[in-house]
Amino acid sequence: MIPFVSRMSVAEQGVWIKQLAAVLPDEVILPFAELTAEQKQQCDVAIVANPNPDDLLALPALKWVHSVWAGVERMMNELESPTFSIVRLVDSNLAKTMSEAVLAWTFFLHRDMPRYAKQQAQQAWAPRPMVQAQERRIGVLGLGELGRVSAKRLVDNGFSVAGWSRHAKQIDDVSCFWGEEGLTSLLSQSDILVCLLPLTQETAGLLNRQNLAFLPVGASIINFARGAIIDDDALLAELEKGHVAHAVLDVFGQEPLPAEHAYWRHESVTVLPHISAPTHPISASNIVASNIKRYRLTGDIPPAVDPIRGY
Amino acid sequence: MIPFVSRMSVAEQGVWIKQLAAVLPDEVILPFAELTAEQKQQCDVAIVANPNPDDLLALPALKWVHSVWAGVERMMNELESPTFSIVRLVDSNLAKTMSEAVLAWTFFLHRDMPRYAKQQAQQAWAPRPMVQAQERRIGVLGLGELGRVSAKRLVDNGFSVAGWSRHAKQIDDVSCFWGEEGLTSLLSQSDILVCLLPLTQETAGLLNRQNLAFLPVGASIINFARGAIIDDDALLAELEKGHVAHAVLDVFGQEPLPAEHAYWRHESVTVLPHISAPTHPISASNIVASNIKRYRLTGDIPPAVDPIRGY
Repeated sequence: MIPFVSRMSVAEQGVWIKQLAAVLPDEVILPFAELTAEQKQQCDVAIVANPNPDDLLALPALKWVHSVWAGVERMMNELESPTFSIVRLVDSNLAKTMSEAVLAWTFFLHRDMPRYAKQQAQQAWAPRPMVQAQERRIGVLGLGELGRVSAKRLVDNGFSVAGWSRHAKQIDDVSCFWGEEGLTSLLSQSDILVCLLPLTQETAGLLNRQNLAFLPVGASIINFARGAIIDDDALLAELEKGHVAHAVLDVFGQEPLPAEHAYWRHESVTVLPHISAPTHPISASNIVASNIKRYRLTGDIPPAVDPIRGY
Repeated sequence: MIPFVSRMSVAEQGVWIKQLAAVLPDEVILPFAELTAEQKQQCDVAIVANPNPDDLLALPALKWVHSVWAGVERMMNELESPTFSIVRLVDSNLAKTMSEAVLAWTFFLHRDMPRYAKQQAQQAWAPRPMVQAQERRIGVLGLGELGRVSAKRLVDNGFSVAGWSRHAKQIDDVSCFWGEEGLTSLLSQSDILVCLLPLTQETAGLLNRQNLAFLPVGASIINFARGAIIDDDALLAELEKGHVAHAVLDVFGQEPLPAEHAYWRHESVTVLPHISAPTHPISASNIVASNIKRYRLTGDIPPAVDPIRGY
């Protein structure tokens, strides 16, 4: 018996449980609310999606939980020194979908789509000079699975790509920067900055006024990671000044983005409803099932999230 | 001495002549207006960009003209049985740029950017179901150099791609259709239809009411070829009915698109000012120079446009 612990709606939870049951035929998957007191004492593994931490603390035998999502920062924040391991979803399909979104909205900015939309609203026929992909410098913040696959895909499409991560990394055809000094270098040469960082204590508010000021004048930003990495007031100020030309934002400190937020009506902001790389229940369930089957056979728990690093 | 014959502005013509002179140092390149009567009698080759046909007919020794553009349909229409060959620009860089535009605006439609823009205008947070690239069927009309390279690039990015040409062709990983019957099949399975056909007597008005009706309900159209291939009234009617969901139009029967045209204000039309694949003077001049140098050495004229086919 494996509990599914989430704050999802009953309907959404039902979709996941059905899919998980199909690929884990030897297990009984139950919503947390349906567990008996005895079942709560026994279960050693749980499948989770933004779980209520109290629910997890009510499972004393828990050795590990498998998230169906890649981002687990909320769980990490809400659980102080958990006694069980937290495994997040590492889905190569997710990296592929994310790299598609990165490429799609990089083209959106590279080919001047926001400006052509404004010109159309004014019936203005005004071709802009064509910039070759190799002249366009893309900076990718975060070189984990999502960042690495996205950076490679940008390279494959002819862009000049640099990347930044906390620790030194090497990726073919990508100029890699790291650490605090490296961040300044990367920012100062990014015409389009793509944020794919995990949200941790170190990345919260990383794109503040001071760091945004390092971007070249007229740079654009894509945030497909977590809203809290950007200081919203600082970004709005840079957009107002025209230092930052355009921002494509898919993630926000509060989601759904409140109707009164300035981003909605800002002509240099594209607001997306957290759609860059949705987890696909079929693909995610297959990965979770394979990890749980291996655990049942061998006792091996997949690599867990580092509580210090936060990812 | 080689005349440059065009209807460009003096400034634009100057850019081209300067670039051509740099790569053809053994030739004198002159605007047509500056030719002496004697020079007009002598020149055997001309470089052209949408030339006035009367200017060309004033050059009796002309053996061939090299266009700096890929599209020469206007010249073909205006010159009845010319006594010289017409060579159009075949620029692999142009095909690369076009394939980038095709991919960029295919993503624009594939990732629902027009709908998210409408939702943003209403402060509506409404994620749409994610469609995988392989579930999205792209139909490419025209499998010449531009169509072939674009179709391959769509395949490389995971889309399901079919193509149509007048005569049978074969391209790896692309379902190829041809002829009149093939057109119906291609249209009926294209979620996104990309038009890259040359404008000829046979393709003028090809996308009329009858043919547009074969598209699946909710299909979208990208026209990066020539405006006259689409019957504008038919397309507007299909957009009104919602049979066609969105059209990205970069080319029009009259350019610039007149300010009063319905396309400008239609919420399901993206109007672009003919920017999908601008000819790059440096790249085009190198190709023209290399063809003219070979002609001076060997007398060989590059493959000319077929006056019957029109391309």
